[in-house]
Amino acid sequence: MRKNYLLTPGPTPLPPQVQEAMARPIIHHRTPQFQAILKEAQEGLKYVFQTKNDVFILASSGTGAMEAALINLLSSGDTALIVQGGKFGERWTEIAKAYGINSEIIDVEWGQAVNPLDIGKKLKGNPKIKVVFTTLCETSTGVVNDIKAIGEIVKNTQAVLVVDAISGLGAVDLKTDDWSCDIVVSGSQKGLMLPPGLGFLSVSQKAWGLIENSKSPRYYLDLKKARKALEKTDTPFTPAITLIIALIEALKIIKQDGLENVFLRHRKMAEATRAAVKALGLELFAPSAGSDVVTAARVPAGIDGEKLVKTMRDTYGVTIAGGQDELKGKVIRIAHMGFIEEFDIIAGISCLEKVLSVMGYKFNLGSGVKAAEEVFLK
Amino acid sequence: MRKNYLLTPGPTPLPPQVQEAMARPIIHHRTPQFQAILKEAQEGLKYVFQTKNDVFILASSGTGAMEAALINLLSSGDTALIVQGGKFGERWTEIAKAYGINSEIIDVEWGQAVNPLDIGKKLKGNPKIKVVFTTLCETSTGVVNDIKAIGEIVKNTQAVLVVDAISGLGAVDLKTDDWSCDIVVSGSQKGLMLPPGLGFLSVSQKAWGLIENSKSPRYYLDLKKARKALEKTDTPFTPAITLIIALIEALKIIKQDGLENVFLRHRKMAEATRAAVKALGLELFAPSAGSDVVTAARVPAGIDGEKLVKTMRDTYGVTIAGGQDELKGKVIRIAHMGFIEEFDIIAGISCLEKVLSVMGYKFNLGSGVKAAEEVFLK
Repeated sequence: MRKNYLLTPGPTPLPPQVQEAMARPIIHHRTPQFQAILKEAQEGLKYVFQTKNDVFILASSGTGAMEAALINLLSSGDTALIVQGGKFGERWTEIAKAYGINSEIIDVEWGQAVNPLDIGKKLKGNPKIKVVFTTLCETSTGVVNDIKAIGEIVKNTQAVLVVDAISGLGAVDLKTDDWSCDIVVSGSQKGLMLPPGLGFLSVSQKAWGLIENSKSPRYYLDLKKARKALEKTDTPFTPAITLIIALIEALKIIKQDGLENVFLRHRKMAEATRAAVKALGLELFAPSAGSDVVTAARVPAGIDGEKLVKTMRDTYGVTIAGGQDELKGKVIRIAHMGFIEEFDIIAGISCLEKVLSVMGYKFNLGSGVKAAEEVFLK
Repeated sequence: MRKNYLLTPGPTPLPPQVQEAMARPIIHHRTPQFQAILKEAQEGLKYVFQTKNDVFILASSGTGAMEAALINLLSSGDTALIVQGGKFGERWTEIAKAYGINSEIIDVEWGQAVNPLDIGKKLKGNPKIKVVFTTLCETSTGVVNDIKAIGEIVKNTQAVLVVDAISGLGAVDLKTDDWSCDIVVSGSQKGLMLPPGLGFLSVSQKAWGLIENSKSPRYYLDLKKARKALEKTDTPFTPAITLIIALIEALKIIKQDGLENVFLRHRKMAEATRAAVKALGLELFAPSAGSDVVTAARVPAGIDGEKLVKTMRDTYGVTIAGGQDELKGKVIRIAHMGFIEEFDIIAGISCLEKVLSVMGYKFNLGSGVKAAEEVFLK
């Protein structure tokens, strides 16, 4: 017997309604039956994205949707401003490089949020900047950026604001329209509680202005094709039918709970997790800018971080994430996003305590769980 | 009560094992547990593709994999030879156009297969042709092309042969290595009996030679990234985990039956379907080159083809496909591919008879079903 607990920042666990939906017989996509589903998905996505703009659904992972945003907006030789502060901020730079875009980079120290004023300065200094690429929650460090303040700054410029909200959408507040986010990119396997395989993009009128003129070559990821199809409640290419049917179920759950309550739940789990790791004597990796999506904590001196994660997963069935790239072995990352609940966090912290203890780390057994319980009891 | 029968050329019905696999709790993809699954998928795909080459799995629909083939092989200004004979052959031309590729086109009449000798002539006439793009089964017309003969011709030239086998792989014979197919593209929702959302590509050494030199901009669909990841039994971006786990189940079914038996089953169903529609007095759209994947038949004079398909689906629960593009309303297409069996065909023909009868078409009721039964009894 082995019971598994998934506490990773994507994929996140699946609600039973989502699992059940994917086990249904499949239907054809060029039918009124599927059109009704696409329509419902569109309405639910607009609610979660907090937008009146169209939200496009791609059969791709989040990176495909990031690439779609970039190549539909920009042509080779154009200039973009990219906020980097982790692995996923860097992905914008990599995609830009692949397409011959000139990147101005704000290189934020890993573990810190960007100072929105720095974006304003850069935009003032270089009027050629057509697009600002940012990240809502940087999964690799656990940091959340102040998109509201960034939107305030970008909206009065010529530049279009793109937010990678793959991690964070449906978990922390992101008011796409009110905060003047022109393109918000997301994926299915995070706050939306689905398996990976869907990418999403909301697109503003300001963004369409650039899209009309972009010369980057594209076909599968062409948003003009997607818009033309959506006008007829259709997709330009065969959609990932099963995942879209499951999406309906996930959106129903979010709508039933209400976005505000969903955000409060994430806030509470994040506070509990932060309290727990601190009680265990672990240092938060992003003490000033930690997100309600995933908490990164430094692995204590003398403990093998990779072995810690591996033992929790392979011996006890609790999967958390380790560090990526330059943080490999140096941090652990505990997700509290999507279909994760209070007692999943308790289980995760308890397992962390168990393995830390076995590995010889000195602390008061139960102190992490107690600290989390105190937060949840409030 | 409504029982649905799906007889469309993608998506095809899902085996219960596939449905069940997708309802399982999700697992994380950067784990030894998922690596074992990727390894099993790789082995199973090599069996179905009949290749020793790596088979890459993309989170995309088939069109994404087609685009990946084209942009990884060619750069703007390069020349390609494209065999067009239906909507999906034309897709190669559209993608080529989007990327600035010069296309030489062999425009085969819809309903006909390409004459392989015409490909040889074109290659001889233009040594600049770097890639030949073909289609195994043209879903829009039901035609199957002679890939074996085409491979014989292309292999002794400088050109690389790409086969769109989205429709056909795992349904009709395609010996990737023996027939010298350099890139074979496929998708999940056809012969592989899965929902849409996965694209596949097998890549030969000869193809890698071009890929190393292609300058087309790409990131998400970059095969060099995919190869680097596969060397570590990984994917460059978050894979469509659930669909890949379901893929294992579908591959097991195919392996258990054996490819030869799978092809024989498709052959028999195709023969039965062709016999049935002919017995009903309907004319085959591709009498000389009909595939074992999908049968296209002309809608009889005086019958509204779109209404026929709609009534079968919306009133009786039997979904077949109508015509696409220039064939809209003019043909019906009955799929006999994937998890479709003898008695599904009988049900489909019976429903066709019912609706044709209601619509006032004159024929002997039961004659289509009888003709199919005669084939199945043999």
